[in-house]
Amino acid sequence: MTERLRREFSGQDEAGVLYGVGLGPGAPDLITLRAARLIEGAQVIAYPTLAGADSFARSIAADLIKDGTREIVMDVPMSVERQPAQDAYDKGAAEIAAALDAGHDVVCLCEGDPFFYGSFMYLFARLSENYRVEVVPGVTSITACAARAGMPLAARNERLTVLPGPLPEDELRARIAGAESVVIMKVGRHLAKIRAIIDDLGLTETAVYVERATLPQEVVLPLAEAPEKAPYFSMILLTKGADPWL
Amino acid sequence: MTERLRREFSGQDEAGVLYGVGLGPGAPDLITLRAARLIEGAQVIAYPTLAGADSFARSIAADLIKDGTREIVMDVPMSVERQPAQDAYDKGAAEIAAALDAGHDVVCLCEGDPFFYGSFMYLFARLSENYRVEVVPGVTSITACAARAGMPLAARNERLTVLPGPLPEDELRARIAGAESVVIMKVGRHLAKIRAIIDDLGLTETAVYVERATLPQEVVLPLAEAPEKAPYFSMILLTKGADPWL
Ligand SMILES: C[S@@+](CC[C@H](N)C(=O)[O-])C[C@H]1O[C@@H](n2cnc3c(N)ncnc32)[C@H](O)[C@@H]1O
Ligand SMILES: C[S@@+](CC[C@H](N)C(=O)[O-])C[C@H]1O[C@@H](n2cnc3c(N)ncnc32)[C@H](O)[C@@H]1O
Repeated sequence: MTERLRREFSGQDEAGVLYGVGLGPGAPDLITLRAARLIEGAQVIAYPTLAGADSFARSIAADLIKDGTREIVMDVPMSVERQPAQDAYDKGAAEIAAALDAGHDVVCLCEGDPFFYGSFMYLFARLSENYRVEVVPGVTSITACAARAGMPLAARNERLTVLPGPLPEDELRARIAGAESVVIMKVGRHLAKIRAIIDDLGLTETAVYVERATLPQEVVLPLAEAPEKAPYFSMILLTKGADPWL
Repeated sequence: MTERLRREFSGQDEAGVLYGVGLGPGAPDLITLRAARLIEGAQVIAYPTLAGADSFARSIAADLIKDGTREIVMDVPMSVERQPAQDAYDKGAAEIAAALDAGHDVVCLCEGDPFFYGSFMYLFARLSENYRVEVVPGVTSITACAARAGMPLAARNERLTVLPGPLPEDELRARIAGAESVVIMKVGRHLAKIRAIIDDLGLTETAVYVERATLPQEVVLPLAEAPEKAPYFSMILLTKGADPWL
């Protein structure tokens, strides 16, 4: 029997609830009503930062965070090895567990949706066996980018394939060639490789590049006119399959 | 030059704006702050209904719709032919255009996200050339179902494939076999076919069935325990690829 079930059966479950809360792609008013309510009411919030940089998730929610809210910051080091990141999530999970044990709910801030390529799943994997965890879905970057580009992602019986840009070149090429609508995430430093593949496949005409969708610094351009360098928060949409006609 | 550009250049663009507003998967508090504000402030809302049935989209937004808001209802007949549905969207688009021409904004209610398998794209295709159209992304059913099932959809460099259940059996089988994480939408009367394929591929253990996610009538079950009959608002998640470990 897990710790959580033991507590529930004994009727003494006074541990707090861990909320994994999606915040949407960046514009603060694309937060859901449920997420806003949870953040405003939170005693404790938690979020990861990457190698000491500011947290994008926290910036989206900033206006909703009340003074005096305790913040658990998990600083995840940049490293090709997994161990340092694992240690950071282990440490964060332990701090969160202590807050939950003390009877406090913890609201973990997640950019976009927590279960769509989100780091929340590392906390979920560590804590869901022993604590009640509720995931509040959020607007993902893929539909936000499609909205800003004015390009329907998929219709009727079309297939939609989401591919991470870091995949090896051959795999990316084969997957794009066999797909209908395609979204390529995590473009960043993989832009040149992805561009070459899309060019080779003769699909550049249909491709749109979107950077920091829904933020003031947003960029939306035909891929052919995209800059040489892409930030991490960028995406390419290929909707060759989408047939908006009915 | 399009009608819209002509009006903009002449400085006389007093036409209203068409908003395609995503409402999320069903729970009213999964509406975004932006969508809520637009619906509360709307003079005119619009939404499709299917063959006279109640509108699911309208029911999600119901508490936000002010008395006196004008409602443009597009009744889309059920039919294997495209023409009757096309006629319904043509007629709806004409009514919306008349409201926009009169200087009113029109808020079109869309279940989930407007550009993710949503019927809003039929209005977008008809009206975006001549009017300003803004799409407000919403929480999609795929991340809502994942949240309710407690199953991360995709992590790191995993691929995610979204497949509509009505696809032919052979195609579905091949696409599922070649994929990592899979979401099957529009399950409904295709449940038996989809189940047989997943069984054949030895993936039933990893499959979860979700019906009416985030609504009071929600059902979340291992596929092996799913009912014989699925409603239209149901989905199957197969996350054999998802490795939540870090
Ligand atoms: C680790 S994933 C997180 C995805 C997020 N959980 C979601 O639901 O969209 C980060 C990637 O999402 C995409 N992304 C997130 N926000 C974005 C935005 N505002 N504009 C463009 N791409 C974005 C980029 O491709 C980025 O590399
Ligand atoms: C025409 S599509 C619309 C999708 C919607 N625009 C979205 O963003 O999720 C309808 C399909 O979405 C899925 N769906 C929508 N809402 C759902 C819910 N609350 N629970 C389960 N599936 C849902 C079902 O597979 C349904 O057949």
